[in-house]
Amino acid sequence: MFENILNEIKLRNNEIKLRNPLVHCITNYVTVNDCANAILAVNGSPIMADDINEVEDITTICNSLVINIGTLNERTITSMIAAGKMANNLNHPIIFDPVGAGASKFRTESAKKLLKNISFSVIRGNISEIKALAINTSTTQGVDASINDIVTKDNLDEVVKFAKKFSQETNAIIAITGAIDIIASKDKAYAIYNGCSTMSKITGTGCMLSAILGAFIAVGQSSLLETTAYTVALMGYCGELASQKIRNRDEGTSSFRTYLIDALSTIKYKDLKAGVKIDVL
Amino acid sequence: MFENILNEIKLRNNEIKLRNPLVHCITNYVTVNDCANAILAVNGSPIMADDINEVEDITTICNSLVINIGTLNERTITSMIAAGKMANNLNHPIIFDPVGAGASKFRTESAKKLLKNISFSVIRGNISEIKALAINTSTTQGVDASINDIVTKDNLDEVVKFAKKFSQETNAIIAITGAIDIIASKDKAYAIYNGCSTMSKITGTGCMLSAILGAFIAVGQSSLLETTAYTVALMGYCGELASQKIRNRDEGTSSFRTYLIDALSTIKYKDLKAGVKIDVL
Amino acid sequence: MFENILNEIKLRNNEIKLRNPLVHCITNYVTVNDCANAILAVNGSPIMADDINEVEDITTICNSLVINIGTLNERTITSMIAAGKMANNLNHPIIFDPVGAGASKFRTESAKKLLKNISFSVIRGNISEIKALAINTSTTQGVDASINDIVTKDNLDEVVKFAKKFSQETNAIIAITGAIDIIASKDKAYAIYNGCSTMSKITGTGCMLSAILGAFIAVGQSSLLETTAYTVALMGYCGELASQKIRNRDEGTSSFRTYLIDALSTIKYKDLKAGVKIDVL
Repeated sequence: MFENILNEIKLRNNEIKLRNPLVHCITNYVTVNDCANAILAVNGSPIMADDINEVEDITTICNSLVINIGTLNERTITSMIAAGKMANNLNHPIIFDPVGAGASKFRTESAKKLLKNISFSVIRGNISEIKALAINTSTTQGVDASINDIVTKDNLDEVVKFAKKFSQETNAIIAITGAIDIIASKDKAYAIYNGCSTMSKITGTGCMLSAILGAFIAVGQSSLLETTAYTVALMGYCGELASQKIRNRDEGTSSFRTYLIDALSTIKYKDLKAGVKIDVL
Repeated sequence: MFENILNEIKLRNNEIKLRNPLVHCITNYVTVNDCANAILAVNGSPIMADDINEVEDITTICNSLVINIGTLNERTITSMIAAGKMANNLNHPIIFDPVGAGASKFRTESAKKLLKNISFSVIRGNISEIKALAINTSTTQGVDASINDIVTKDNLDEVVKFAKKFSQETNAIIAITGAIDIIASKDKAYAIYNGCSTMSKITGTGCMLSAILGAFIAVGQSSLLETTAYTVALMGYCGELASQKIRNRDEGTSSFRTYLIDALSTIKYKDLKAGVKIDVL
Repeated sequence: MFENILNEIKLRNNEIKLRNPLVHCITNYVTVNDCANAILAVNGSPIMADDINEVEDITTICNSLVINIGTLNERTITSMIAAGKMANNLNHPIIFDPVGAGASKFRTESAKKLLKNISFSVIRGNISEIKALAINTSTTQGVDASINDIVTKDNLDEVVKFAKKFSQETNAIIAITGAIDIIASKDKAYAIYNGCSTMSKITGTGCMLSAILGAFIAVGQSSLLETTAYTVALMGYCGELASQKIRNRDEGTSSFRTYLIDALSTIKYKDLKAGVKIDVL
C-alpha cells in the first residue's frame, strides 16, 4: 500500500517536469510571492489573476485553480466563484485553502459559500479551519490551529473519522495539516509525520503547500489521494531539510523560508523517498 | 532610569513567548510579508485582514492593531477607521504608521482623518511623516526623510521638544525613527543610537518595526514608553547584526533583509542588553 | 559603437548615486516587494501608490513612472491612465510592462488602452507579450514566452525587424527579453546575451527589470536606447553572478532570488564592464 505513494512520487516528479502545468491562483497578498516561487520551484508555472473581467479566461488556459481566502474581500470572492465554476465546467482540479475560516463571520460564511458553489478536488487547512467549514462550531485563532484543536496521537482516530466523513460530504480529498498531517478520502487516509516546528514560525507554509498542490494535482488528477499525500510529505520533508540547514549555519526564520523553497527546487527523488514518513490508516 | 529599559527588555521577552499575542495588521501590500514574518520572529501571531465585513470581528479576537497606510485606498481607510474604533472600545493598543504622510494631499488628509477618529497608543514614522501629521508643512520625499528633515545631534533638542508636544496633543507615544531615534511621551524621551545605514537600502524596516511594536505593546501596555523604546532599540540592534553578517560574507541588501529577520528570531536577551545604545533625555 | 554602451554604464552608475531618483510604481502585488528592493539596490527610491486620489500627486514628486499590469483590475487601470497622463504632461519617462498581455481579452485590451492613452519611453516584455500588444494574434502562456515564441539565432533578424517597426509605431524603445534580449529603437538595435535559465525559475525577474529601468531611465532620458540596453545587460549579468553563487553553495531558486538583488546592490562598474555581452545589430 505504501508503495502506491512511492510510485506516485516518482511518477508526479517526472510528469510535472514534462508538462509544466499552469496554475491559476486567486490568493492573498501576504504570501502570494512565496506561492508563485514555490510553484516555480516544483516546475509548475503560476498565474495570479483575480479580476472578474479575466478570471474565466485565465482559468481556461490553465491546468488547475488554487483558491485561498487569506485576505478575502467581496471583489475577490466574486472572482473566486466565477473562476471556480468555469474550472468545474472544464473539469480542471481546484484546491481550496480556507485560511482563517472560523476567525470571523464573513470569513466562515464566504468559505461556506465557496464550498456550496464550487466542487473542489482538495480542501487543505489546519484542523480549526476544516472544523469551521464542517461543523460551524470551531473558533480559530487566526491562521494557527487553536490549542484544543491540535492533532495528536490521542485524537488521531477521531480526526481521521471526521476527515473521512467530511470527504464524503464534499467529495473532495481533505488535507488537515499540522504537527501530524491527515490526508483522507471517504474511505482511506494517510497520516504524515514529516515537517518541523519552524514551519509555523514563518507565514505561508500552508499557502505554499496549497499552491504546489495545484501544480501536482494538475498532473495527478487520476490519483488525487496519493498525489495529495505525496505533496504534503514533500513539503514537510523540505521543511526538515531547511530546519537542519539553519541549525548548521546558526541562522533564523527568514533563512528557513529561503531554504524551504530552495529544497522544493533541488530535492532529488531518492532523498525524498528515504525521508518520507507516512502511515496508512 | 536606564534600568527601566533593561528590565523592560527582559520582561517583554519572556511575556511575549508566554502569551503569543495576536496582532491584527491593516497594512500595505509592499512589505506585508516581511511584517508577518517579523511578528512571527518575535513570537507574535499576525493576522492580516482589511475587508470592512470582517475587520471588527478580527480586531476583537486580537490583542493589538497595527494601521499602516503605505498603499492606502478609500476601501482600506474605511476599514482602518472601523477597526480602530472597535480596538479603542476594547482598549486594545493601536500602532499607527503614517507611511508617506506629506507625499500627497490624499495621504496627509487620510492620516489626519485616522488621527482624528482613533486614539493611538504609539505613532511611528520618520521625521517628515510625523511633521506632516503634526504641522501640515512638511514635504516628504516618499518613504524617506527629506534632506532638511534629518535628526542630528544639532537639532536633537528641538526634535525632542516637538515630539513631547505632539505626544501631549495626541496622547500617544511618538516614535520618530531615523539615524537617531527619538521616543517620547509628553514629559520624557529616549534617544536611541542603534541601527545602520543599510536599513534604508531595503524596503520595510519601518513597517516591520511598527508591526513588531504591535506584538510587544500587546504585552507591554502598562509601560508604553519603555516598551516602545525597547522595541526600536531591538530593531536597530538586529540591523547592526545583519549588517555585520553581510560584510563578513560579502553579500548585499537582500541578504541583509534575510539576516535582519533572522536576528529578530534568534537574538538572546544578554546580547541585546549589551548592544543597546540609549540615552534618557 | 559598443563604446556608447560602456560610457553609458559608467555615466548612469555615477548619476544614479548622486540623484537618487524617485520611481513611482503602479505594479502587481505578486512581485512588488522585489521591485521595491531592486530599485533601492540600484540607488533609486521606490514609491508604490495606486489610488486614483493620489497617483497624480505622487507622480508629480517622482522622476519616473513604472506601469506593470501583472495583477490589473479596473480600479488600478484607471489610476495607471491618470498617472500616465500626468507623467506625460511633466515629461517624466514612463516604463510599461504589459505582463501577460495575450493571456486574457481583458488584459490585452487594457494593455492596448494604456498604449493608446499614454506615451511610453520604454516598453518591456517577453516576445509573446510584445506580439500581443503589437499584432493581436499571439496567445501568451501566462507570464512566460510560449514555446513557438522564443527568440533564437534563427529568428533574430525577424524579431529585430519587428521590434524596430513597433518602436516606430509607438515611439518607445522596445525591450524584448528572454534567452536573447532585443533592445530596439526605430533604426537601431542591440542583442544582449547575458542572463541564465534560473531567471525564469523565480517570479519577478521581468518585473524587477522594468522597475530598475524606471530608476536608470530617470537619469538617462537623454540616451534611452543605450540606457535601456545597459540596464537589461546589468540585470542579466547579475543573474549570472547569482547563478554561479547557488552552484558554488549547492542552493536553490529562493537563494538565487536573494543573490540576484544582492548583486544589483554590490556590483562594481569594472566587473559589469567585463561581463556584458552585447551585439549591435
